[in-house]
Amino acid sequence: MNYNDQYAYYRRAVEETLRCAVPADVPNPLGDAMRYSLLAGGKRLRPVLLLAAYAILQRDLTPALPFAAAVEMVHTYSLIHDDLPAMDNDDLRRGRPTCHKAYGEGMAVLAGDGLLSLAFETMAQSRHPRAFAALGELAARCGTRGMVAGQCVDLTAEETGGNAELLRYIHLHKTADLLTAPLAMGLTLAGAGEDLLAQAREYGKNLGIAFQIIDDILDVTGDEATLGKHTGKDAQEHKCTWVSLYGLDQARKDAKTYTERAADSIKNDENAAIFLKTLAQRALVRVQ
Amino acid sequence: MNYNDQYAYYRRAVEETLRCAVPADVPNPLGDAMRYSLLAGGKRLRPVLLLAAYAILQRDLTPALPFAAAVEMVHTYSLIHDDLPAMDNDDLRRGRPTCHKAYGEGMAVLAGDGLLSLAFETMAQSRHPRAFAALGELAARCGTRGMVAGQCVDLTAEETGGNAELLRYIHLHKTADLLTAPLAMGLTLAGAGEDLLAQAREYGKNLGIAFQIIDDILDVTGDEATLGKHTGKDAQEHKCTWVSLYGLDQARKDAKTYTERAADSIKNDENAAIFLKTLAQRALVRVQ
Repeated sequence: MNYNDQYAYYRRAVEETLRCAVPADVPNPLGDAMRYSLLAGGKRLRPVLLLAAYAILQRDLTPALPFAAAVEMVHTYSLIHDDLPAMDNDDLRRGRPTCHKAYGEGMAVLAGDGLLSLAFETMAQSRHPRAFAALGELAARCGTRGMVAGQCVDLTAEETGGNAELLRYIHLHKTADLLTAPLAMGLTLAGAGEDLLAQAREYGKNLGIAFQIIDDILDVTGDEATLGKHTGKDAQEHKCTWVSLYGLDQARKDAKTYTERAADSIKNDENAAIFLKTLAQRALVRVQ
Repeated sequence: MNYNDQYAYYRRAVEETLRCAVPADVPNPLGDAMRYSLLAGGKRLRPVLLLAAYAILQRDLTPALPFAAAVEMVHTYSLIHDDLPAMDNDDLRRGRPTCHKAYGEGMAVLAGDGLLSLAFETMAQSRHPRAFAALGELAARCGTRGMVAGQCVDLTAEETGGNAELLRYIHLHKTADLLTAPLAMGLTLAGAGEDLLAQAREYGKNLGIAFQIIDDILDVTGDEATLGKHTGKDAQEHKCTWVSLYGLDQARKDAKTYTERAADSIKNDENAAIFLKTLAQRALVRVQ
């Protein structure tokens, strides 16, 4: 299979799992609000990373699927809360009204809480012998020393102006930690050793920084219709970004450097490992 | 030890664990906001229930302490989010400004997210052989078929007016599920069989309903200074409560019935089991 077919294959497995991920007996509008955001499409990058990492060592993806779903739930919850008026105050996400625009602020808070809880509930139901360790990988990276820590520094940097050190902290935790988590989870479930895990951590860190630089570039150069969200927001809010700090040219160079570093950190030559290398290289296409 | 000494003993163990529960390297103001709410006192009822349930079968409480802390983190996160302007819009909690009043709305959303994440991170770090099962008990009851489901129905009932059936659903999930969870967790960690677990579920369900009835009564008859929060809010907002549905006298009778049912469901005669029976009976004192 070529890269695109491979991505589509992983993504389809994720979509099928997510379609039934929110139980039917969750009361509405909570269940509806959760499904509205969880099933809004998107690239499903994080669960795809998890499945690809798992596939380096294992053939049957089935045992990894609940964990892939859990990672996407955590990602979706973070978007819902991040979009709230008290946070980024966004009204458009993936071309549709954000969760709080569609269901109200209170329900959006609960939909986020519900998705985070459901992520852990879903993993806790797994009978995989390494389920607890995989859950721990996500718990360590989605919380107060991981993604939520990044959100906090992002929120306060908006007030204080920010600088290069803060920006790196934000990119590492707000973005990279939730790319590293699924890689580490997939490998942990698959029974990988420390060597592969270290490669994945290096890959996730560099890919995360690259992605965030690309995001900053697209906020300047991107097209709203293609991106499904408003652009030009960063400049309008005088936000500290890779572009505002280093300029557009340097940002493009740095995006290239970090995607190359990500690709180079994968030493394994299994099909699924080469898929991960290609994924990093492809990310660049959007900004060059 | 008499009941009060026993409660104080469990509570002290919880307080000591909570004091260092938020890691020092969590960025501020996130870490401060989490500690502000987590260390604001309170009865520590849920972790005390966990330790008492564990103590029915085990002597050394140490292995149960991280789980006791986790339950209190989940309880505290739910209070922070529940107090938000988009939810209950409360500005006073335990005699102090609520988290969003002290740290702003965005940071309060993150402090709640952080505490929920930290609860799972804390449990995931345990090396107890039954840690995964205990974590599962909390995950199943704090989320979209448990506490968050109760919050959702509570929030929508405010708009639709509510009725007896909805009120029971809210009490069972918003309150009882987070009392049953620590009991089930404590017993699971301690290696209890299905018999004791069934007693605990019955106890938690009835205690939860009783507590919520008592809360509804205190909102009418209670003293703001003693309670550390505003009273009379329910009537002011025409909220459907046990008192508005059944009247004050019947509510008092029902509180007695449910606390008795809770106490009667514990058949074990270990010291810690008798402590749980007494705890249910003592709850009534506040309203009679």
